[in-house]
Amino acid sequence: MPTYRPPIEDGLFLLNDVLQIQKFNNLPGFEDATPDMIAAIAEEAGKIAQDVLQPLNAVGDLEGCTWHADHTVTAPKGFKEAYDLYSQSGWGALPFPEEYGGQGLPLAINVAVQEYIASANMAFSMYPGLTSGAAAALIEHASEEQKQAYVPKMLSGEWSGTMNLTEPHCGTDLGMMRTKAVAQDDGTFKISGQKIWISAGEHDLSDNIIHLVLARIEGAPDGVDGISLFIAPKFLLDGDGNPDQRNGMTCGSLEHKMGINGNATCVMNYEEATGYLVGQPNRGLKAMFVMMNEARLAVGVQGLAQSEVAYQNAADWARDRLQGRSISGTKYPDQKADPIIVHPDIRRILMTIRAFNEGARALAFWTSLKADISHRSDDEQERQDALDFMGLITPVIKGVITDKGFDNTVMAQQVFGGTGYTTEQGVEQFVRDARIAMIYEGANGIQALDLVGRKLPSKGGRAVQAYFKEVGKFCSAHKDDQEMADYIAPLSKSLSDLQAATMWLVQNGMSNPDNAGAASTDYMHLFGLVALGHMWGLMVVAAKEKLAGGDEGSKQFLENKLLTGKFFMERLIPESATHLARIQTGCDTMMAMDAEAF
Amino acid sequence: MPTYRPPIEDGLFLLNDVLQIQKFNNLPGFEDATPDMIAAIAEEAGKIAQDVLQPLNAVGDLEGCTWHADHTVTAPKGFKEAYDLYSQSGWGALPFPEEYGGQGLPLAINVAVQEYIASANMAFSMYPGLTSGAAAALIEHASEEQKQAYVPKMLSGEWSGTMNLTEPHCGTDLGMMRTKAVAQDDGTFKISGQKIWISAGEHDLSDNIIHLVLARIEGAPDGVDGISLFIAPKFLLDGDGNPDQRNGMTCGSLEHKMGINGNATCVMNYEEATGYLVGQPNRGLKAMFVMMNEARLAVGVQGLAQSEVAYQNAADWARDRLQGRSISGTKYPDQKADPIIVHPDIRRILMTIRAFNEGARALAFWTSLKADISHRSDDEQERQDALDFMGLITPVIKGVITDKGFDNTVMAQQVFGGTGYTTEQGVEQFVRDARIAMIYEGANGIQALDLVGRKLPSKGGRAVQAYFKEVGKFCSAHKDDQEMADYIAPLSKSLSDLQAATMWLVQNGMSNPDNAGAASTDYMHLFGLVALGHMWGLMVVAAKEKLAGGDEGSKQFLENKLLTGKFFMERLIPESATHLARIQTGCDTMMAMDAEAF
Repeated sequence: MPTYRPPIEDGLFLLNDVLQIQKFNNLPGFEDATPDMIAAIAEEAGKIAQDVLQPLNAVGDLEGCTWHADHTVTAPKGFKEAYDLYSQSGWGALPFPEEYGGQGLPLAINVAVQEYIASANMAFSMYPGLTSGAAAALIEHASEEQKQAYVPKMLSGEWSGTMNLTEPHCGTDLGMMRTKAVAQDDGTFKISGQKIWISAGEHDLSDNIIHLVLARIEGAPDGVDGISLFIAPKFLLDGDGNPDQRNGMTCGSLEHKMGINGNATCVMNYEEATGYLVGQPNRGLKAMFVMMNEARLAVGVQGLAQSEVAYQNAADWARDRLQGRSISGTKYPDQKADPIIVHPDIRRILMTIRAFNEGARALAFWTSLKADISHRSDDEQERQDALDFMGLITPVIKGVITDKGFDNTVMAQQVFGGTGYTTEQGVEQFVRDARIAMIYEGANGIQALDLVGRKLPSKGGRAVQAYFKEVGKFCSAHKDDQEMADYIAPLSKSLSDLQAATMWLVQNGMSNPDNAGAASTDYMHLFGLVALGHMWGLMVVAAKEKLAGGDEGSKQFLENKLLTGKFFMERLIPESATHLARIQTGCDTMMAMDAEAF
Repeated sequence: MPTYRPPIEDGLFLLNDVLQIQKFNNLPGFEDATPDMIAAIAEEAGKIAQDVLQPLNAVGDLEGCTWHADHTVTAPKGFKEAYDLYSQSGWGALPFPEEYGGQGLPLAINVAVQEYIASANMAFSMYPGLTSGAAAALIEHASEEQKQAYVPKMLSGEWSGTMNLTEPHCGTDLGMMRTKAVAQDDGTFKISGQKIWISAGEHDLSDNIIHLVLARIEGAPDGVDGISLFIAPKFLLDGDGNPDQRNGMTCGSLEHKMGINGNATCVMNYEEATGYLVGQPNRGLKAMFVMMNEARLAVGVQGLAQSEVAYQNAADWARDRLQGRSISGTKYPDQKADPIIVHPDIRRILMTIRAFNEGARALAFWTSLKADISHRSDDEQERQDALDFMGLITPVIKGVITDKGFDNTVMAQQVFGGTGYTTEQGVEQFVRDARIAMIYEGANGIQALDLVGRKLPSKGGRAVQAYFKEVGKFCSAHKDDQEMADYIAPLSKSLSDLQAATMWLVQNGMSNPDNAGAASTDYMHLFGLVALGHMWGLMVVAAKEKLAGGDEGSKQFLENKLLTGKFFMERLIPESATHLARIQTGCDTMMAMDAEAF
């Protein structure tokens, strides 16, 4: 059975040495984020992940959720107890404002917690994950009265949350939405329609479920400009704010899925359910999109999380499994065979995953810090710059980390040979679970299109220009340092590939938007290589500084960091040239064939 | 639910126009292979695949096989009837010698049949597939008496076959094998030990199961030089050659797996089972390896087969699913939305899979023709050249087509968005089933090592030099043809990358074998790009010639072939540069870290 060890040392290195979050103690909430405090949080979160949630991962997969004839759903055995422990320990409240019961801590710390939970049990992590997303949306868009009524109970975990967007005939294209909302005399609405793939839509973990529902108010315009956002609690609240009368939505059935079986993926039928409008009418989609930056970051972290736990188990297996002999000569003559970690091709797999994971973790932490700045800085320019960066990097994080994270689980599975294909071994679950992250919260093709079609041209390309300047400045600052040559030369090359691709898009995407579409996925992955390469540059600089400081306790960790970064530069970042070559071939060939001929 | 249409037109184009197998009518069995005959075979095989086997694919996945307390196993509902129909139609006998009840037809035709069956129902295809593999081993290595006793009933499907290699502690490293064989006075052996992952090890489809078992004769040398091959039938034969007394092996349990649930993957316990030695003692592994070339080709075809059926279903969905509008302007104003096939990124996915599939199919057919020549030519040089090529290309076919075939099923699943993650839709089964092909018959890392460590240096590099000469000659012959420039320039570039990589291996792999190991997987994939690129070159030439001949009926097919080939050259083959760059970084970084640090 798989095991899991939270990568605490790496997280602390990122927060303390790379991001140096102590420097941001002018931001509210950061003053408490001392190294000791951060370490204590990481260790406590790691403990619940490792000891409580990970052992339930296979249980959730094998048992799944159960739908009952009365339309109730029970989560897998043990989930309720784990959920209560998780909630009571305050993990659901960590990064939220104190005025609604949150702890006000930085998102940059919360992202570590998110990773541990999602590594240990991705299906479980979605229950509190959806609640956090819904709470964040309410904090951003709801009235003060609505916030006070719902948010504190959601942060405490007593109530959970969902997001209801998809309908059978519309997923990506929400403009086709049919669920309708009819205004009532008392200011509420009656919501009717069917929503599908509603994660955590019905279950027995919490006392109430706060559904956020997109619907079209009767008479609203067609398309995306006629969609509004509503709160529709499973139980309507009584005068004291406690769950009371059952509202008019039920779970019609559970989806049977490839993975994340421990999470209830519901078909939700709304029949004149009472809903409360959030924000302005017809502005619902915009409200949802603001929330999505952080939700997409969280999904990117799921990709990293599955990649990390798959890596750890593959590394353990590679150290233990005796099979064959090293091709460069027997390494363990006293054993019947060498452990397979002596084989370069096994190390190639492990190093590929590791170099990706550590880069992706840095990018997720870095971006979370930008999110903190965008929410908490008192400098408008700083807030704006952080928002620009977040908008730009969000599709990259979601698309690239989940694509490659999935690939990594497949590679990790390969280390196990036939054993990895068996259910008993358990690593195949990581592959099945990781697969969904490429699809939900906007399929990765949509992320790529969001990047090239919306984020790049936004405000005259302000965000991407600022980003190129930042990475370029980093390269320039270290270009004469011989000790950095192994890192800076490949990063500079990749940056110039990305700049060439961007220029190509500017020149060819306007004249024919299909050129931008044809380039989008390759462009997103090329961007990802540069973004991870930049993170590796920062990590290497921080590691070298710390090594120079003579920190003996972390010497081995830091030297491995340098090696892993070198591997990234040797083996991963060179793919940028292929992406550029593909992008520059344009759309003509792929668009030429008749649809019927496919 | 998924559907399947056998790609008959493509197969006939390959056999008649690209390979021009009519030119080989000097080979035994080829005289019957007229275009009409080939078309009739393809259509009949396509029919059973489409109408009988494909509808059972989801049944097999959901129901799986059932192990009973008396150690018997039943296959999923409908498999027995389908198996009888398949066998009675003679599909199991197609390429085998007539003297043992075969039909003597070319392997190059059989490979088309194999693809259809494996696309329709991979788990089912393994029952007759294992039988064919076992029969081929017997024809090559068994005594005439053994052949007469077993092979005809295996080809007719009355009896089925298995291969018993793996044990719990040894998969790749068969030298550690513990199953023992004790010689008896009557010349037979008593076999005892445990074998695992035995596909089709026990089931209710056939009247007898002929197990081929590797075991160590008491007193034989340690390691791979002490392993012998045995026939151990489930039922021993009576004096008339009919199944009689139950032999001493039982199925202890079935593995629970990620996929291919319709095939019984058995733990087989041998307790003094009667076995008959095949060939010479201690030469068992060599006998198995001879058989493996064709078995590995068949597994490569499974990768293609899953990629093809996934492609077809993704293309159908992309044509039908209305969602959003084309970014270059609405294409279907009379509909609520455009079908998603208008989007370049969807076409990028479909064209990527298609360009791979058609190239892989050509390579599988081409290699099968070489196998035919190696078996049937009366020219020793021709036979030898064909064997050289087969040895070289087999790990490429197995490794590359199953790796990319799997990736393609994942990409095809992505086209479906959330629907593709549900069991009901069915495309996720292709991903789970395709996954095993990367693992069994030698994990793909072993294929890569076989290529660089054994096949490349074999006989002073004779095979690879001949291959480079052949592809180089093709490039030279067309390099001045302007109409071929889009194809020849990228192929030549990729060939020169492969040659540079080979030179690097020669120079660096001898001094440190870990450099070869570190390069192996990238080298295999680089080789695959050249091999597929060469096939595309041949297909394009054949298509242009046929177009010039004014064949109106196939004009659209041929023009799509040119487009698809162009896409291959624009988007797939350029990856060769990245593989070369990775190879040339060597093994130092990946070997530097302590095993404990992973």
